[in-house]
Amino acid sequence: MQNFEYHNPTRIVFGQGAIARVNDLVPATARVLVLYGGTSAKKNGTLDEVKAALGAREIREFGGIEPNPTFETLMEAVAVVRREKLDFLLAVGGGSVIDGTKFVAAAVHFEGDPWTILETHGANVTGALPFGSVLTLPATGSEMNNGAVVTRRATQAKLAFRHVSVFPQFSVLDPTKTYTLPPRQIANGVVDAFTHIVEQYLTYPVNGFAQDRFAEGLLQTLIEIGPKALAHPHDYAIRSNLMWVATLALNGLIGAGVPQDWATHMVGHELTARYDIDHARTLAIVLPSMLQVRRDSKRAKLLQYAERVWQITSGDDDARIDEAIARTRAFFESLDVTTRLADYNVGADAIDGLVAQLEAHGMTQLGEHNDVTLDVSRRVLEASL
Amino acid sequence: MQNFEYHNPTRIVFGQGAIARVNDLVPATARVLVLYGGTSAKKNGTLDEVKAALGAREIREFGGIEPNPTFETLMEAVAVVRREKLDFLLAVGGGSVIDGTKFVAAAVHFEGDPWTILETHGANVTGALPFGSVLTLPATGSEMNNGAVVTRRATQAKLAFRHVSVFPQFSVLDPTKTYTLPPRQIANGVVDAFTHIVEQYLTYPVNGFAQDRFAEGLLQTLIEIGPKALAHPHDYAIRSNLMWVATLALNGLIGAGVPQDWATHMVGHELTARYDIDHARTLAIVLPSMLQVRRDSKRAKLLQYAERVWQITSGDDDARIDEAIARTRAFFESLDVTTRLADYNVGADAIDGLVAQLEAHGMTQLGEHNDVTLDVSRRVLEASL
Repeated sequence: MQNFEYHNPTRIVFGQGAIARVNDLVPATARVLVLYGGTSAKKNGTLDEVKAALGAREIREFGGIEPNPTFETLMEAVAVVRREKLDFLLAVGGGSVIDGTKFVAAAVHFEGDPWTILETHGANVTGALPFGSVLTLPATGSEMNNGAVVTRRATQAKLAFRHVSVFPQFSVLDPTKTYTLPPRQIANGVVDAFTHIVEQYLTYPVNGFAQDRFAEGLLQTLIEIGPKALAHPHDYAIRSNLMWVATLALNGLIGAGVPQDWATHMVGHELTARYDIDHARTLAIVLPSMLQVRRDSKRAKLLQYAERVWQITSGDDDARIDEAIARTRAFFESLDVTTRLADYNVGADAIDGLVAQLEAHGMTQLGEHNDVTLDVSRRVLEASL
Repeated sequence: MQNFEYHNPTRIVFGQGAIARVNDLVPATARVLVLYGGTSAKKNGTLDEVKAALGAREIREFGGIEPNPTFETLMEAVAVVRREKLDFLLAVGGGSVIDGTKFVAAAVHFEGDPWTILETHGANVTGALPFGSVLTLPATGSEMNNGAVVTRRATQAKLAFRHVSVFPQFSVLDPTKTYTLPPRQIANGVVDAFTHIVEQYLTYPVNGFAQDRFAEGLLQTLIEIGPKALAHPHDYAIRSNLMWVATLALNGLIGAGVPQDWATHMVGHELTARYDIDHARTLAIVLPSMLQVRRDSKRAKLLQYAERVWQITSGDDDARIDEAIARTRAFFESLDVTTRLADYNVGADAIDGLVAQLEAHGMTQLGEHNDVTLDVSRRVLEASL
């Protein structure tokens, strides 16, 4: 096992009816900005429920945070917080709203150009406004970690930052709030969580037994519940497991003490930035090819993945690896998440531009061995056509 | 899944050489009481390493905390803290030292008789001194939770308390510090961690898929590494997994959202209080009988345990349950932890006294259904002879 440090101070309040607890979780004297995305939080009543829980507190609202939150929009929220002298943020939505809220929290008192927070990946952050979240979309794990991804509309740059000060103080997870989500968002959430786990699991063995068993357990659970979550939107058992698994997939736990990859995410980000493909769908496109192209350096873990996650025990090593990758792709497709660039009308002519974007963003040595060069990324994209 | 709240603010610093990090983790101006147990922390150099890491800070030492820490001894430590106006505690040792330190932390500024902290199980605690731990013995999980068990020597009462203020601020886990532990303590640690997991797993199904997969993964890991931990004391891979698994076994994670039992622990505590049997050994004695006596109410989970933890798939339901319980007992015995009261010279004549102790401590409705009455506990003890 590798040496590690693990610290996650976010309080999770989980279950049907949990939103009422917001009243205990937000300081009584807080001046709150409630941040949300599109109109669904309004239409499905979640926003009203949150406002009711906030009671007599002074609140302002900021809606319109995009599925891939933009720096431009978030800076408008920063201006509202500064102008109205608000001191607590409450994100109501999915990963995009929570990611955006983290950026707003870090930017409000930041001296200098807040875009540099992204350029330095958080290294220059000195503090943040306190904030909490009410999660409505299980997917990104942002509700229990200190990372965020923000896109600059003007330059198509999609960059990540993390800082110790942007753990949510609390996150409220009510699985019934996912009942009205469109199937597309549920499917995306399953793929996103699945890929988060793979990025931390499918590298090389370091004898992290608990981490491996946890990762395999979460993957198996997603395989089991993913299709059911689409078929039975009001099944509390399924939706509650989806919500908790997606949180556990990226709260630091399964990645503590083991190598991590994240090359699939970095390549996927460029697809979203340039072609506006849903984040999860970029992962579904890139991951199978990424595993295929890097099958030699990931060999031991691919065989373990084949056996322990997919119960593939027959055939020689290469056949088992092939089948595990094929089953991964088939799983995504079974959720109606297509896995080829062609499905999104992106052709071979796009690859030069995508590689140039990777280079511009310093993504030239990705992966657990830092050996995913631009050339490797190019081959992954070619294999994804 | 049941509704739950999960919050664990303890920072884990894990790995070979981690003790040096104590210098960053303890406030620079802290006046520190270093608490430890017997002479092993001195002899094996851990105490010196900790003191070196504390540098120029003002420190006092308090040794002699017993394997089952006593109120009487801990109150002496409280007196030292008060007299010397110390403001930070650092536990160096295993679960007993850390449990004892939690009590000292809560007692120092407590108004009234500190024994009532145990009598109320922590309900009357209002705060605690900050503290950290340097773990040397993987077993109890105390390094990453807010519970503690303290024994009153005068009355043979062994009682637990928990409070939000007694999470360690940090815990340093260096697996190499376990290399010199006696085999008996390693074996006890494996049994203790194993039973902690079972208490949170082997109840009744509530569709907590992640929790079940995590628990099964931790149990399987202990089954895999337990004998190796005894056979190869200097195997870093084995010892690091034992240390991290024991922490994960009782840090609140696998128990969040699922029912919990703890009847085995409560009955075991009386055996320790009255006959001074090692805590883990009391669990090894009680657990197999507890599962046998309550096999009907635990039926579904016992079958799941048989299949998923022990890979028992042949035979009818009762045969599979019998085999799972027999394998559990055999696992403990394989670690040289005997599992019968007779092995500890406790006979049938002891049972009346033990049941009376349970009654005196209010342990009359134990277990996940509150149906472990004194009569059930009596039958469990009889089955443990």
